[in-house]
Amino acid sequence: MTGPRHSCGVIGMYCSDDVTSDIFKALRMIQHRGQESAGISVFNGSKVITAKGTGLVSDAIKQTGMQAINGNCGIGHVRYPTSASKSEKNAEPIEVQITHGTIALAHNGAITNYQELKKKYLDTGWSFLTDSDSELISKIIAKHLIQNNDPVKAIRSTMGEIEGAYSLTLLYNNRVFGVRDPYGFRPLCVGWLGNGYILASESVAIDIFEGDLIRDIAPGEVVEITANEIKSHPSSVNYPSAHCMFEWIYFARPDSVIDGREVYDVRKAVGEILASESPADVDLVMPVPDSGRAHALGYSIGSNIRYEEGFMKNRFAERTFILPDQKQREDSVAMKMNPIRSTVNGKRILIVDDSIVRGTTLVKLVKMLRDAGAKEVHVRIGCPPVIAPCYYGVDMKSRDQFIATKYSVNEICRKIGADSLGYISVPGLVKAIGKPENDICLACLNNRYPTNISGETHRFQTTLRNSY
Amino acid sequence: MTGPRHSCGVIGMYCSDDVTSDIFKALRMIQHRGQESAGISVFNGSKVITAKGTGLVSDAIKQTGMQAINGNCGIGHVRYPTSASKSEKNAEPIEVQITHGTIALAHNGAITNYQELKKKYLDTGWSFLTDSDSELISKIIAKHLIQNNDPVKAIRSTMGEIEGAYSLTLLYNNRVFGVRDPYGFRPLCVGWLGNGYILASESVAIDIFEGDLIRDIAPGEVVEITANEIKSHPSSVNYPSAHCMFEWIYFARPDSVIDGREVYDVRKAVGEILASESPADVDLVMPVPDSGRAHALGYSIGSNIRYEEGFMKNRFAERTFILPDQKQREDSVAMKMNPIRSTVNGKRILIVDDSIVRGTTLVKLVKMLRDAGAKEVHVRIGCPPVIAPCYYGVDMKSRDQFIATKYSVNEICRKIGADSLGYISVPGLVKAIGKPENDICLACLNNRYPTNISGETHRFQTTLRNSY
Amino acid sequence: MTGPRHSCGVIGMYCSDDVTSDIFKALRMIQHRGQESAGISVFNGSKVITAKGTGLVSDAIKQTGMQAINGNCGIGHVRYPTSASKSEKNAEPIEVQITHGTIALAHNGAITNYQELKKKYLDTGWSFLTDSDSELISKIIAKHLIQNNDPVKAIRSTMGEIEGAYSLTLLYNNRVFGVRDPYGFRPLCVGWLGNGYILASESVAIDIFEGDLIRDIAPGEVVEITANEIKSHPSSVNYPSAHCMFEWIYFARPDSVIDGREVYDVRKAVGEILASESPADVDLVMPVPDSGRAHALGYSIGSNIRYEEGFMKNRFAERTFILPDQKQREDSVAMKMNPIRSTVNGKRILIVDDSIVRGTTLVKLVKMLRDAGAKEVHVRIGCPPVIAPCYYGVDMKSRDQFIATKYSVNEICRKIGADSLGYISVPGLVKAIGKPENDICLACLNNRYPTNISGETHRFQTTLRNSY
Amino acid sequence: MTGPRHSCGVIGMYCSDDVTSDIFKALRMIQHRGQESAGISVFNGSKVITAKGTGLVSDAIKQTGMQAINGNCGIGHVRYPTSASKSEKNAEPIEVQITHGTIALAHNGAITNYQELKKKYLDTGWSFLTDSDSELISKIIAKHLIQNNDPVKAIRSTMGEIEGAYSLTLLYNNRVFGVRDPYGFRPLCVGWLGNGYILASESVAIDIFEGDLIRDIAPGEVVEITANEIKSHPSSVNYPSAHCMFEWIYFARPDSVIDGREVYDVRKAVGEILASESPADVDLVMPVPDSGRAHALGYSIGSNIRYEEGFMKNRFAERTFILPDQKQREDSVAMKMNPIRSTVNGKRILIVDDSIVRGTTLVKLVKMLRDAGAKEVHVRIGCPPVIAPCYYGVDMKSRDQFIATKYSVNEICRKIGADSLGYISVPGLVKAIGKPENDICLACLNNRYPTNISGETHRFQTTLRNSY
Repeated sequence: MTGPRHSCGVIGMYCSDDVTSDIFKALRMIQHRGQESAGISVFNGSKVITAKGTGLVSDAIKQTGMQAINGNCGIGHVRYPTSASKSEKNAEPIEVQITHGTIALAHNGAITNYQELKKKYLDTGWSFLTDSDSELISKIIAKHLIQNNDPVKAIRSTMGEIEGAYSLTLLYNNRVFGVRDPYGFRPLCVGWLGNGYILASESVAIDIFEGDLIRDIAPGEVVEITANEIKSHPSSVNYPSAHCMFEWIYFARPDSVIDGREVYDVRKAVGEILASESPADVDLVMPVPDSGRAHALGYSIGSNIRYEEGFMKNRFAERTFILPDQKQREDSVAMKMNPIRSTVNGKRILIVDDSIVRGTTLVKLVKMLRDAGAKEVHVRIGCPPVIAPCYYGVDMKSRDQFIATKYSVNEICRKIGADSLGYISVPGLVKAIGKPENDICLACLNNRYPTNISGETHRFQTTLRNSY
Repeated sequence: MTGPRHSCGVIGMYCSDDVTSDIFKALRMIQHRGQESAGISVFNGSKVITAKGTGLVSDAIKQTGMQAINGNCGIGHVRYPTSASKSEKNAEPIEVQITHGTIALAHNGAITNYQELKKKYLDTGWSFLTDSDSELISKIIAKHLIQNNDPVKAIRSTMGEIEGAYSLTLLYNNRVFGVRDPYGFRPLCVGWLGNGYILASESVAIDIFEGDLIRDIAPGEVVEITANEIKSHPSSVNYPSAHCMFEWIYFARPDSVIDGREVYDVRKAVGEILASESPADVDLVMPVPDSGRAHALGYSIGSNIRYEEGFMKNRFAERTFILPDQKQREDSVAMKMNPIRSTVNGKRILIVDDSIVRGTTLVKLVKMLRDAGAKEVHVRIGCPPVIAPCYYGVDMKSRDQFIATKYSVNEICRKIGADSLGYISVPGLVKAIGKPENDICLACLNNRYPTNISGETHRFQTTLRNSY
Repeated sequence: MTGPRHSCGVIGMYCSDDVTSDIFKALRMIQHRGQESAGISVFNGSKVITAKGTGLVSDAIKQTGMQAINGNCGIGHVRYPTSASKSEKNAEPIEVQITHGTIALAHNGAITNYQELKKKYLDTGWSFLTDSDSELISKIIAKHLIQNNDPVKAIRSTMGEIEGAYSLTLLYNNRVFGVRDPYGFRPLCVGWLGNGYILASESVAIDIFEGDLIRDIAPGEVVEITANEIKSHPSSVNYPSAHCMFEWIYFARPDSVIDGREVYDVRKAVGEILASESPADVDLVMPVPDSGRAHALGYSIGSNIRYEEGFMKNRFAERTFILPDQKQREDSVAMKMNPIRSTVNGKRILIVDDSIVRGTTLVKLVKMLRDAGAKEVHVRIGCPPVIAPCYYGVDMKSRDQFIATKYSVNEICRKIGADSLGYISVPGLVKAIGKPENDICLACLNNRYPTNISGETHRFQTTLRNSY
Repeated sequence: MTGPRHSCGVIGMYCSDDVTSDIFKALRMIQHRGQESAGISVFNGSKVITAKGTGLVSDAIKQTGMQAINGNCGIGHVRYPTSASKSEKNAEPIEVQITHGTIALAHNGAITNYQELKKKYLDTGWSFLTDSDSELISKIIAKHLIQNNDPVKAIRSTMGEIEGAYSLTLLYNNRVFGVRDPYGFRPLCVGWLGNGYILASESVAIDIFEGDLIRDIAPGEVVEITANEIKSHPSSVNYPSAHCMFEWIYFARPDSVIDGREVYDVRKAVGEILASESPADVDLVMPVPDSGRAHALGYSIGSNIRYEEGFMKNRFAERTFILPDQKQREDSVAMKMNPIRSTVNGKRILIVDDSIVRGTTLVKLVKMLRDAGAKEVHVRIGCPPVIAPCYYGVDMKSRDQFIATKYSVNEICRKIGADSLGYISVPGLVKAIGKPENDICLACLNNRYPTNISGETHRFQTTLRNSY
């Protein structure tokens, strides 16, 4: 996949011991979900203390005095910017003081009626200090809390106002909540650590403590965790879910389990199905590392064609390095990826990547293989053609950017210079994920959106939104 | 492999255009060989200009005005510290001014008679500004140059004094040389770029320019490159070579070709041979990523047992992150490596790693797999037991640190908690490398050193060193 | 004066050209008023853009893309923390979006009813994101703006709610306002630059552009500036003012003119009056540099005793420098200040400082002079004894910290080891300032507060606060 | 004075306790002599350890582990670059290992026969790693040490080879030496600290420890200090000295005593003499702060005209601050210096500065005063016209840069826009310094150089250099 399209990541913890350093540890396990900024909020016994900054978790904390905090409940966040401009101002958790105390909120997702809701509240006299939908969510929760001081009710009422994708962890004074939108777009799970509970975007954050993944938070569910207990407040309405298929295909770590399905297994199954849907007479199957590895392995298993690691990735290439007079020769793909000639030379090769957005990288990879002596180069993609924007937290905003909206598969095949090109089918993808099609969000593949988006088609032709 | 035991890397270039930014690009391709410091020396038409600093290539250059340099010949270096303490003082290239001009030197290796030679020259009245063997080499070359102003002769004379491992690139005013010690311990190759020649520790530095690997510098050879020509000054004596087996097993990038052998192919062959030497009745074969990947693939091919990527590596875990009150729970291996439970659970598993030095990491990996439900865990190692120190540039200095000097294979197997443990045999390793045993340095495996080392056994029981 | 007790500084500009870099230049001229953080807000033609960060103006801007902004109106702020904890979160200008647009606010002062007002608004359902009184002010202005969209009315209504000290610059979309509280505690003036108008805490910020100081903003006045015009909205009520005497004595730069009085002249007059109130038979008069220089010069003029610069200040001593095992020998006063022995030796000396808070520095200075051979050391202070806390923006919060609440002048004289000690009298200070006593805030000297402060005495025994 | 023309500073210490942090403290007291780099070398009981880096003392040390060193003798250096390009490579102390141990050298001055000597040694086969004359000095000392292992003799022999200005501190294993060239160009003094001795460029470095200045090192003298003793090795030849007059006029801190004369007293005497040589009928005398303050005070005393501090200096203006589109309005002098209008307005003013090199700053200061209402502006300069380059360590290299080589005093007066301009005369300056003219270096004022400089005139028309 060409560029980073990460989501954000959230953590919540309530233990019988201090959670401060453990939240940081958990955040580092989900660092792949966002590297722009990071933060943590802990209730230190008398009040909520928040520390946040730009950069990786380890850098963001350096500037703070977080080490000194001692508290047994808190939340954390890693951010990839989706809805607001890059700046420390938009780092999370966002902290809101109200008359009953302090709310800190960490949010993964995107509120689709943000502009409309913000305008509505601006018109009633509200003011905002940031451009982040998290401030809006926090303030709506605050509004309801002020009315009833019942956090679960306040969250529920807020869920009745906001639309879109949101997995939240929330610290309200000394109480910790996890919230997932009624469609379950973004993941959120809960685990047991021996001395307390953890909420996390991905189960790998539980593994680091040798803890146990208990279950996913259900779509529409609100949970409260303490050191001893998970109190569930399930949704009273019954939507079909709309789990983002990209979490399994690209975002999540392969060792995470998302909504009951091991990510690695889904990717391998994608590869196996792709092998049957889109076979090829080749000598070897190779991944585009690291993201296409499990898909390629599945293809190899499904096709019984030898698997090879024929591309080498340069782990140091990500660092920016710009000389003012940089020559034209520089080729950032070449700096990152290099074929193993002895493996490739004289062979008919099939490479597997997780997805195509713009297709620019593949052009270069195919050329590299031919230059290294490959007789044929076939390309298989573990995700159907992306043709529609995402409004639920993935940074794909405009139809113009997608190669598949402009060209047919055959044309794309010619453009990238491959001998053949095959995408997994939508039914194939659904089968690999192993859930009913209606429980998965495939909007970016089929233009049918699980929620009402102005100008877009609803997947059921009718709105299911109920009053909460 | 437990810790970083990298070597250094060197580059030399002579092109019809400016080489400054290209040397940096080439250095970034061999960044895996050293991350402590980096530097470059370019002849700008009238004099040699050197810029160097600590950190990665991209950081080391930021502090300098190197962008402004324009020159068509130069050298570069990335450093992993082997013989001198960490400091900018020891960054290379080292620059020495003599009456005939300026020498800049980049060195990969270790001079075994450094202390003895340094003492000898100190006693004749020399003085030194650093603790680096590169200063010693430079000054001996300088001494000979002053006598005859013939760089090839001066280098040859120096080679008659220094012992040990050295692959050098050298800029003498506007001339560029490549030098490899008579045993060829460390790699050095030459490539054609279309507009000039490049010397590089690894062929991947040629690939970035879509250049052609021409050949390796021969043991004992001195070459001079210009934009049009490679002038060779081969060794007049005939030693058996002593290529470091670790370059293929661990140091080099899999996509490099070292002394005629593709590193990836050697590693796969190691795995295949290991499969026949040390078979196991298991359900699946898994690498310890990233270093054991090719070996594991070879084992899978050789054994016809399914290959799986059952460990996930956290790419963000390398960053230091220390909270003062860091809890005992923190486990750096767990932060870096996590098993995929669905793949592992209920299975008999064989993992392949490149080598064992201390064995501490493997204890944790085996335990992780058992915790994740593995029925059996078998371990295979792509390198025979390391039992002796290296004096040729690998950071393994004392017999005490090696688990294999203290315990038998069975004992190690029990210590790491595996169901079985198998190392590749020395003959197996030699066969995988595909060269005569006498052309490979196996001293760390068999205690027989290619050169005279005080207190150690020479591999031929007799010294072959001739006067040069 | 022992420690830094700086206030903050504000700027507002409206010119026919771009003001971005000019606001930064102006901020650098008032950098002495705050070094913790700095920021700027500019209206770029379509919206308000804010950049802010920690550190000096020159550092705070580095991290931003402020260079690219182009706009002809904006405001700026330098911060010394008085009411909230140190963090980028509290950097100003604070930006608040409402339905009619964006308000950016820069504030110098302290709201005395902040806690009470915040609680009141929290209880009505408001929420806050920071602990800064500037957020409160902004939101109250926002509240009123939403009701009437008349910024002057909104500011006036806000002034009816908040109490204490505030000099504000305010950007409301493309309009710039300056506001001064009804007592005029903190300075604020307006100047003409040839191509527009500037609002500034101190007139030195006008000088840098070779502009003309027009006048001070009157207590209780609201002004709006454009490139062509100053629109004044004077206060309708008539309080006596309460200009902070410390602005003339210590905070402001000597080359600033505050409320019609050149700071340098006030300080010299203090010295002259001190010479007549508290004469001494000495050989020479010396300042404690840099803050006591003008006072000492005045004493010299008044007493006709020779002026000497007998203390040398180390300009590099401010930088922190802590070795873990720092020896007891280290003496930070000695690092900063050193007497000139030849000048001091054998002499009867009188030193003049601007004020005493804790007195710790003076103990060391007196000892230094005696060690350097001074026969007598007399101390004169350009400010009467500080005995009461400041609630109006000076960082002196508790009576415990003042030496003058615990000891008589004679006792203090003995404590600091001086041969005599004289403070200027309150009437003397008032005379030096050259304004009616009732127009100056002397609360920290006489316990009589210009505004109602719970637990403190009002200076007129009765409240004058009217409804606005 | 327009720009920084600082020299370097050196420290040496030998105490019964650890000296590491004390050397740093002493270096911070002479930080005004050099801010480019700083370093320290300490003998830790078994060997010499050196730490150095770029920036202020407090920054240079941060990067090192110097805190851990424990030793009772060492040296230190602060650098302003005079002879080599800016880089960490040229930071001092320079450390040279020879067969007998390690030499560390800190140098203030400039070797006038550096190129010639370097060439001579290059031609005999030496090599150099830097472009610093300190490496040359170290290696010549090393050469002699190797021959006789008598450090005093080795230093003496080196003094017979090198020419020019040098005040050195030298650590040779566990011995500490101070050396001053035969002319005594740069200062060097020795003090007693209670627990050992200190060598320092300026006596202020002794004051910080409340130590006693014992005496200056004599021109041509070599001293060795221990914790108990100063061993003197005086020069056997008798040159007239050539103390740099700029040390008193500009470089040194006013509170230092250089060669028996308090710097502050010299500057005041300069002012007094200037008052009689170049009187003016004015209302007040003002310094250009900070460097002209003592001179102005002297003028005020000598003329009986009132002294005022009519310029205010912005302490924060030094920091670089460049916006890409910086407007023409920016005026760095205006950012740094601002007149006090009430003081200046309507007055006839005389300003005193320490010296003129290019004269560009004065043009602006005079204009500022006129803009502020001054009726007349007269300028007096505490140093005669600078017309010749310095080869002894002051960064004034070319006659072209001096305004006084191109214009007469009257012309300069017109150029800077003053009503009158007066320089102190050379005899006046000599009288103020209070030493025989022949003991002061006035080469930059009268073109007569104390040592042989090719192309320049010797002050005695004949060479006095003897063999040592």
